[in-house]
Amino acid sequence: MNNFDFHNPTRILFGKGRIADLNAQVPNDAKVLITYGGGSAERTGVLAQVRKALGDRTVVEFGGIEPNPRFATAIKAVDVIAKNGITFLLAVGGGSVIDATKFIAAAAKFSGDPWEILTSRGSVVKEAMPFGTVLTLPATASEMNSGSVITHAEKGAKLPFMSPHCYPVFSVLDPELTYTLPARQIANGVADAFVHIIEQYLTYPVAANVQDGFAETLLRTLVDIGPKAIEAPEDYDLRANLMWTATLALNGLIGAGVPQDWASHMIGHEITAFNDTDHARTLAVVLPALMNDQRGPKREKLLQYGANVWNIHEGDEDARIDAAIDATRDFFHAIGIKTRLSDYNVAASDIDTIIGALTDHGMTALGEHGAITPEVARRILEAAV
Amino acid sequence: MNNFDFHNPTRILFGKGRIADLNAQVPNDAKVLITYGGGSAERTGVLAQVRKALGDRTVVEFGGIEPNPRFATAIKAVDVIAKNGITFLLAVGGGSVIDATKFIAAAAKFSGDPWEILTSRGSVVKEAMPFGTVLTLPATASEMNSGSVITHAEKGAKLPFMSPHCYPVFSVLDPELTYTLPARQIANGVADAFVHIIEQYLTYPVAANVQDGFAETLLRTLVDIGPKAIEAPEDYDLRANLMWTATLALNGLIGAGVPQDWASHMIGHEITAFNDTDHARTLAVVLPALMNDQRGPKREKLLQYGANVWNIHEGDEDARIDAAIDATRDFFHAIGIKTRLSDYNVAASDIDTIIGALTDHGMTALGEHGAITPEVARRILEAAV
Repeated sequence: MNNFDFHNPTRILFGKGRIADLNAQVPNDAKVLITYGGGSAERTGVLAQVRKALGDRTVVEFGGIEPNPRFATAIKAVDVIAKNGITFLLAVGGGSVIDATKFIAAAAKFSGDPWEILTSRGSVVKEAMPFGTVLTLPATASEMNSGSVITHAEKGAKLPFMSPHCYPVFSVLDPELTYTLPARQIANGVADAFVHIIEQYLTYPVAANVQDGFAETLLRTLVDIGPKAIEAPEDYDLRANLMWTATLALNGLIGAGVPQDWASHMIGHEITAFNDTDHARTLAVVLPALMNDQRGPKREKLLQYGANVWNIHEGDEDARIDAAIDATRDFFHAIGIKTRLSDYNVAASDIDTIIGALTDHGMTALGEHGAITPEVARRILEAAV
Repeated sequence: MNNFDFHNPTRILFGKGRIADLNAQVPNDAKVLITYGGGSAERTGVLAQVRKALGDRTVVEFGGIEPNPRFATAIKAVDVIAKNGITFLLAVGGGSVIDATKFIAAAAKFSGDPWEILTSRGSVVKEAMPFGTVLTLPATASEMNSGSVITHAEKGAKLPFMSPHCYPVFSVLDPELTYTLPARQIANGVADAFVHIIEQYLTYPVAANVQDGFAETLLRTLVDIGPKAIEAPEDYDLRANLMWTATLALNGLIGAGVPQDWASHMIGHEITAFNDTDHARTLAVVLPALMNDQRGPKREKLLQYGANVWNIHEGDEDARIDAAIDATRDFFHAIGIKTRLSDYNVAASDIDTIIGALTDHGMTALGEHGAITPEVARRILEAAV
């Protein structure tokens, strides 16, 4: 096991009706800015629940945060904070709204050019406004980590940052809030969480029994409940297990003390940049092809993954690895997500463009060994057409 | 899944050589009280490492904290804090030293009679001094939770308290610090952690896939590494997995959103009170007898435990439960811990005394259903002679 630090101070308020507990979590004298995305937060009644729970606190609302949230939008929120003397932020939404709120929280306390928060990957952040979240979409785990990704449309850049000052103070996780989500968003959340786990698990063994066992539990849970949670949107237990699994998939726990990969994410980002394919779907395209390409360096973990997640014990090593990759692909198909570039209107002739962007962004030594060069990424994409 | 709150702000510094990081974690201007137990902290060189890491900070040392730490001893430390203007506590030891330090941290900031901290079970605690820990014995998870048990010898009382103000700010978990521990203490730590997990797992199903899977991972890890970690005291990976497992066994994660039992602990405490049997050994006596007695109410989880921890799939339900209980007993034997009252000089004729004490302490409705009355506890102990 590698040395590690683990620290996650976010308070989780999990279960039915927990929005009512906002009253105990938000300071009584807070001036609150509610941040949210499109119209669904209003339409589904979540915003009404939140307003009611906040009682007679001063509340200002800031909607319109985009999927792939924009720098310019966040900066507008920073202005609203200054004009209204806001002291507490409350993100109501999924990963995009929470990511934006992290950036807003940091930018509101930052005296320099807020663009530096992103170019420094967060290292210039020395404080941030306190904020909580009400999660409506299980997927990214942004509700229990300190990371965020912000897009600057004019600069054509999508940059991540992390800061220990950007953990939510609390996050409300009410599985009932997911009942009204479109099946497509639930499927994307399942796939996103699945690949988050894989990125921290499917590398090489370091005798981390607990981390491996926890990752396998989360993967088996998604395999079990993912298709069912799409079929039965109002089954509380399915949605509760999905929500808690997606949070634990990227809250730092399973990644503590083990190598991490993240190549599928980096390659997938360039496909999204190319033609706006849903993030989760790019992962479902890249991951199976990457598994196959990297069956040498990942051999031991691929065999372990096959045995412990898919119960694959028969055949020689390569046959078992083939079966594990097939099972992974079948799982994505079972939740309605296709796994080929051609399913998303990306042709073999587009790969040059994607690899060019990957190279331009400095992603030239990806994966747990830094061995996924642009040439390897090209081979992976060519196998995924 | 039941509704739950989860919040654990302790920072974990895990791995080889992490004592050196105390310098970055303890405030530079802190006046530090190091709390510790007997002579082993000095003898093994841990205290020397700690002193070196603290550099030229003012350091006062307070040794002599007992196993089952005493109220009177803790109060002496509170006096030392006041006399020396101490601003930060650093516990160097196992669960007893850390438990005592939690009480000291709360009592030093409490204006009333500190005995109330215990009689109120911690509810009167509104603040506590900041403290860190350097863990030397994997067992209790006190290094990553907010609970503590203090013994008042004169009052003949051993009382627990918990407070959200009593989480360690940080805990250093260096597996190499465990190399010099006696085999008996490692065995006790393995058994203690095992039963901590069982108390939060072996109840009745509430569709908590993740919590169940995490608990089973921790149990399987202890089954796998427990005997080996005793055999090979300087195998880093074994000790690292043991240390992280024992911490995660009782840091709130696997118990969030599920019913909990704790009857084995409450009954076991009275055996320790009766003749000072090691806490972990009383658990190894009570648990298998309790499993057998409660095979009705615990049926579904006993079958799940047999299947997922012990790979028991053959035979009818009662045969599988028998096999799971036998496997549990064999596991304790494999780490050198006997599982009968008679192994610890407790005779059938002593059970009256033990049940009397249990009743006197108000422990009359134990277990996840409150159904373990003193009569049931008597039946369990009679079966454990």
